[in-house]
Amino acid sequence: MALSYAILGTGALGGFYGGLMARSGLDVHFLFRSDFDHVVQRGLRVDSKNGDFYLPSVQAYRRVEEMPRVDCVIVGLKSTQNHLLASLLPPLLGEESTVLVLQNGLHVEQATREVVGPGRVAGGCCFLCSNKVGPGHIRHIDYGRILFGPYRGLEDDEPGPSQGRLEAVERDLKNAGIECQLTQDLTTARWRKLMWNIPFNGLSVILNASTDVIMGDADSRNLARRISEEVRQTACLCGSAIEPEFVDWVIDHTDEMVPYDSSMRLDFNNGRPIEVEAIYGNAMRHAARHGVQTPLLTTLFQQLKFLAAHR
Amino acid sequence: MALSYAILGTGALGGFYGGLMARSGLDVHFLFRSDFDHVVQRGLRVDSKNGDFYLPSVQAYRRVEEMPRVDCVIVGLKSTQNHLLASLLPPLLGEESTVLVLQNGLHVEQATREVVGPGRVAGGCCFLCSNKVGPGHIRHIDYGRILFGPYRGLEDDEPGPSQGRLEAVERDLKNAGIECQLTQDLTTARWRKLMWNIPFNGLSVILNASTDVIMGDADSRNLARRISEEVRQTACLCGSAIEPEFVDWVIDHTDEMVPYDSSMRLDFNNGRPIEVEAIYGNAMRHAARHGVQTPLLTTLFQQLKFLAAHR
Repeated sequence: MALSYAILGTGALGGFYGGLMARSGLDVHFLFRSDFDHVVQRGLRVDSKNGDFYLPSVQAYRRVEEMPRVDCVIVGLKSTQNHLLASLLPPLLGEESTVLVLQNGLHVEQATREVVGPGRVAGGCCFLCSNKVGPGHIRHIDYGRILFGPYRGLEDDEPGPSQGRLEAVERDLKNAGIECQLTQDLTTARWRKLMWNIPFNGLSVILNASTDVIMGDADSRNLARRISEEVRQTACLCGSAIEPEFVDWVIDHTDEMVPYDSSMRLDFNNGRPIEVEAIYGNAMRHAARHGVQTPLLTTLFQQLKFLAAHR
Repeated sequence: MALSYAILGTGALGGFYGGLMARSGLDVHFLFRSDFDHVVQRGLRVDSKNGDFYLPSVQAYRRVEEMPRVDCVIVGLKSTQNHLLASLLPPLLGEESTVLVLQNGLHVEQATREVVGPGRVAGGCCFLCSNKVGPGHIRHIDYGRILFGPYRGLEDDEPGPSQGRLEAVERDLKNAGIECQLTQDLTTARWRKLMWNIPFNGLSVILNASTDVIMGDADSRNLARRISEEVRQTACLCGSAIEPEFVDWVIDHTDEMVPYDSSMRLDFNNGRPIEVEAIYGNAMRHAARHGVQTPLLTTLFQQLKFLAAHR
């Protein structure tokens, strides 16, 4: 039997995945902020590489207190809004509810974990290029795969949600047409994604350049590779074995990407908070707990913190 | 007996030192480019923290071929103009002439050395805050000490100029009111200066901030310290022993500086070439010859190369 869902953060990510899920007939409840009136009157529109669709009516809410308790809450907020989770999550949770955190970074699930306790949190890496282009209007550019698994806490020693629950979520997502895969090693999946995010999010802001421009310059291209390699070595030293060839894959894959402004650059250039702590700070602190030095990661972190404070 | 001098590059540095030398009665010949007509008609003006002065008439030239051969040529050009030295230096040199290179960086003397051969080149570090504020018009803000010594080549195995010649230069400079000191270890003197130049020149461009703003932010301040410490450790591993406390001195000293735009930031913001190769590239290559890794230095180098190519 299908689960019921709530989507927190109906933007580029939550709007795309939640839209697909609602279209497939799942019981999905959306929290909106500024877009609420627009969506109630005009519905949710998704322009997708895989086919446009339009949902004239979705189960939309302005406040979590008006929403039902659900089997699974999907957190699609930016991690810079995680301070809101203490008030957003509890009204949505029953005894058996699970929370799936779809955010960038490392240990981004910890904020959720602190609110809901152990054994209930899963995290997912999304390989998705999409933007919100207007109220209730999402443009999906490319990709979309979700790799998700149980979150086991800062010390990797806590239980995650039951395998049966995660498989039920996987089944629902797949039925909705979302490519997804369950992993037992979320930490390594996160590190692999960080091998892209850490060089390209940071350099796109520091050098004020899109990924194709970074890749087209011999110096910045080599710098991106060196950073990705440091992330890989850090992951290995922290217990997540990642093969050396994966650096080549990251670089080659970026060459093939459509010219893309990283979400961090879009946030920075639009005056929004950037996810420095989730992506850089948490990775640094994870490395420090394992006694691993991260000279390049720390440099990017400090440069980004400065730029965010002085833009 | 006093020596005769030529000044190549009569800007913030050459104009200040050359002006002091001419005022003291030394036989000084100045090469000018765009300022030639102005200086011939109106002289050279130096507004200095240590007392303003004005030279209504200086020995000014537009072309090196019109200048006499001199005992000592002082190179005050930016290192980004070193490709001009092959044509600028030979007409000024007699059998016994010496060249004193007053440029930032490491092995910046090598371009001169390749033109004039071994045994004739000295290099100096200038601790000087000054700007050219108009044609033939220099503003000296603070400091001014020169630490100079024989340049011994990339492998540190060549003879420098004779000690007698360097002492004669030292005497002339001191008589002109220029604080200066002769050292037998130019390389270590250069590394000490790089402990400031490498963090603060680079970060001022990358973060688009003056030194006081960099020092006022906890992240960039710590980053500057980490970079300075990497430079120190690199110097030590390359054979230039510098005590750990010198990092504290660099940081404390920067706190006490008047708010100052580094020359690299001024060059960058005014669309002029920046001295990335002399300051960063040469230090990297020197370290590489000694088998020393320089992750932060290399990162700044690559970021600056990118920014210079894409501003």
